[in-house]
Amino acid sequence: SLSAKVSAGRLNGKMREKTLTMDTLNPQVKAVEYAVRGPIVIKAGEIEKYLEEGGTKPFSEVIKANIGDAHAMGQQPITFLRQVVALCTFPELMDSPSFPEDAKWRARRILQGCGGHSLGSYSASPGVECIRKDIAAYIEQRDEGVPSDWENIYLTTGASDGIMTILRLLVSGKDSSRTGVMIPIPQYPLYSAAISEMDAVQVNYYLDEDNCWALDINELYRAYQAAKLHCQPKVICIINPGNPTGQVQSKKCIEEVLHFAYEENLFVMSDEVYQDNVYTPDCQFHSFKKVLYEMGPEYFNSVELASFHSTSKGYTGECGFRGGYMEVINMDPEVKAQLVKLLSVRLCPPLAGQAAMDVIVNPPQPDEHSYKQFHQEKSSVLGALADKAKLTEQILNAVPGIKCNPVQGAMYAFPRIFIPPKAVEEAKALGMQPDMFYCLRLLEETGICVVPGSGFGQKDGTYHFRMTILPSIEKLKVLLGKVRDFHISFLKEYSALE
Amino acid sequence: SLSAKVSAGRLNGKMREKTLTMDTLNPQVKAVEYAVRGPIVIKAGEIEKYLEEGGTKPFSEVIKANIGDAHAMGQQPITFLRQVVALCTFPELMDSPSFPEDAKWRARRILQGCGGHSLGSYSASPGVECIRKDIAAYIEQRDEGVPSDWENIYLTTGASDGIMTILRLLVSGKDSSRTGVMIPIPQYPLYSAAISEMDAVQVNYYLDEDNCWALDINELYRAYQAAKLHCQPKVICIINPGNPTGQVQSKKCIEEVLHFAYEENLFVMSDEVYQDNVYTPDCQFHSFKKVLYEMGPEYFNSVELASFHSTSKGYTGECGFRGGYMEVINMDPEVKAQLVKLLSVRLCPPLAGQAAMDVIVNPPQPDEHSYKQFHQEKSSVLGALADKAKLTEQILNAVPGIKCNPVQGAMYAFPRIFIPPKAVEEAKALGMQPDMFYCLRLLEETGICVVPGSGFGQKDGTYHFRMTILPSIEKLKVLLGKVRDFHISFLKEYSALE
Repeated sequence: SLSAKVSAGRLNGKMREKTLTMDTLNPQVKAVEYAVRGPIVIKAGEIEKYLEEGGTKPFSEVIKANIGDAHAMGQQPITFLRQVVALCTFPELMDSPSFPEDAKWRARRILQGCGGHSLGSYSASPGVECIRKDIAAYIEQRDEGVPSDWENIYLTTGASDGIMTILRLLVSGKDSSRTGVMIPIPQYPLYSAAISEMDAVQVNYYLDEDNCWALDINELYRAYQAAKLHCQPKVICIINPGNPTGQVQSKKCIEEVLHFAYEENLFVMSDEVYQDNVYTPDCQFHSFKKVLYEMGPEYFNSVELASFHSTSKGYTGECGFRGGYMEVINMDPEVKAQLVKLLSVRLCPPLAGQAAMDVIVNPPQPDEHSYKQFHQEKSSVLGALADKAKLTEQILNAVPGIKCNPVQGAMYAFPRIFIPPKAVEEAKALGMQPDMFYCLRLLEETGICVVPGSGFGQKDGTYHFRMTILPSIEKLKVLLGKVRDFHISFLKEYSALE
Repeated sequence: SLSAKVSAGRLNGKMREKTLTMDTLNPQVKAVEYAVRGPIVIKAGEIEKYLEEGGTKPFSEVIKANIGDAHAMGQQPITFLRQVVALCTFPELMDSPSFPEDAKWRARRILQGCGGHSLGSYSASPGVECIRKDIAAYIEQRDEGVPSDWENIYLTTGASDGIMTILRLLVSGKDSSRTGVMIPIPQYPLYSAAISEMDAVQVNYYLDEDNCWALDINELYRAYQAAKLHCQPKVICIINPGNPTGQVQSKKCIEEVLHFAYEENLFVMSDEVYQDNVYTPDCQFHSFKKVLYEMGPEYFNSVELASFHSTSKGYTGECGFRGGYMEVINMDPEVKAQLVKLLSVRLCPPLAGQAAMDVIVNPPQPDEHSYKQFHQEKSSVLGALADKAKLTEQILNAVPGIKCNPVQGAMYAFPRIFIPPKAVEEAKALGMQPDMFYCLRLLEETGICVVPGSGFGQKDGTYHFRMTILPSIEKLKVLLGKVRDFHISFLKEYSALE
């Protein structure tokens, strides 16, 4: 209360005011939005607490389909990955017969790359050397021989950290309002949040919902030309496979983007954290780097490209390890030195995350003991995700007023939802985005927590939500059934009002 | 080469220029300096490689005393901490009889606080709830009953991450050149680096070398008044125990700082990562929070204070885990919500680091199995550090032209070195700081890597270097002997030139 503040803050008749208030707070922080952990998720947490404390709702549990957090949804860790990290953490386990030799061998190799052979020492700021080398070897194999230089590899604290770091180089402070960053709409809101925090200009290019969320090169040129009038676009961000949109980009489309970036001198950031999450047989992951290589040396030796990967997605889902890497090619050598300097201020990425990343790029080989179990676990996770992707699309498309593109990859469905005009009006009267209004109603009535499309961006007048496909198949069926019932009764309620 | 660049970059007769060059790079990144991993450390790495490849030098190994990286210097991890983290990483070990029950109990409790009982899920952005509660309980105990609210605790990715986050709130982008951040000189260069990156104004207050690096309140007022003429000082940073200076602040001095912050409406950031590293019997660690409490409710309920801790220092030295926390009191509730939003963009700190932090704040109790070993290991590390602190001070002070204040705490000696005028001239002719010149010579001739005082800041015309006291006692003796011999011959060489 004010009076308490006054009495607490008064000394010698002088009132001490707070230094940090909403008025003095860095306005760029105020401008940041991050829907994936935004108001609807806070509300879901409150309802969870209320239920725990014995409160009643028309449902018994909150199902959080708001964030790509596989283990929280019951996915089991890959045994081999955890064995290697446990061995690195507690090397006394090297003597234990219950750990396989192939895991021990990897753990020993990682520890040999660590100061004092301990996971507790700082690594070099770009990461442990042997892990960087393993990553480069992995990329070469993935890209069928396209060369990868380990000195271009930088371990990161999750992919988010790498993306923020590269943007930090590109976005100048003083004239930051002039630096344009091209991002897809819909996008993963890390991008818009980083752009707000750094006070850059967000340049939207819209993905084509009618064409499975494909990237249309004409739209890219349109967005670029429009942006040129008020800022200098310097970088284009692509998310492939798409988050929240789930599309997998074709090779032709990637070529077009790279040609565009070449022509317009744009730095390319390709967020490829879902590279192992491709579900439909007619789609295939193509790395931006490989496509660039195939376009010839004029392209491969000139386009500045940073690509990002993570331990958090794929079949491992190790979000809590905060592991990831970026590969940066064609960066000016002097700028690279500046990048290393910037990384060094934060010292280094967490070593357990680096070790986890090493297992992902250096998995058991066919002649190794752990191969069979590793591949069973990996196939089981990816197979279940493919089933759930299909199931989600099918059930959602059977609901009148919902239209969902195929979930070709990643971990999310991003269905378009029809919201009746009366509901739109009611939302607006409440000062709320119509899809936020919809998602709050869904949460309150069913316990299902999804994120409104407005948190990712969408074409004006269209409404969506993002849901993960991570719950177990049984729970996912329940969830989708509840969404269907809710949507039907929501339509009925607001159409009746017409 | 230019011709290669031209041919690589030319297509259709058009040359593709790089987007990101030293000219277009964010100038704030260019301005960042971080001496602890700066040019001298890069040079040390080169020499190491040269020796490995069979090159010869007047020494057989490089001794890196540049960074507080205990495990890299051979310090062994605390067994109990690693047991708990290994159990969390690989819960199958819960069935292993070789892990003690008290470790299993803690690991189970941490995992119960994790989504899906897995270290692989994201935690809430401020950290795992039960760990936040353990931290609050620890702080209450440390501060002899001063209340700590677990909702004021935020886990971080090392202390650096917390410090950057709080500064980000305080330093406005647009008018950032007007936000003053008061820091001690000498300082840990994270502070100056963050200030450069955010384009704030660095406001130096000088510690009193003649008085064991004590903080002089008059100097604080002087610095503040001088800064007021060209910026708005909003925050004061204190490092206690001091880095690189090793002093432990008296209670009276802390009271003066807090009174000053109260009067001048400054946000207080107290970097207390070395709180367990106090060596001299006449010194004691006083937390800023406890002192604030004892000053009475007018102070305790109003001064905005963030204090920082870490898994990287103390007796654990777990740098690679990137664990840490901050406690933030008296922050405006709306601003706190903004802080949580900002943290959520980065998702969460690494879970292994959170678990490690939990062990530090919740160590084995006297009635528990692991108590004895834990305390033996802890005392052994802290006892050795105390011995090495004393030894370092003694040996350095016996060298003519070196004067070293007592290493009361932290992990560094920061001796003042006399550099003869002729050497100063020679350095300046090379465009180099005289202490950088000195440290490079030391490295080239002895293999010892220390960081020049100019990387931390020092009074004009004085020269220092920072060295860690972390090498084993045998290696430390060798190191100090080499420093002595080098310094004597350096003095001789340049005095002979007079």
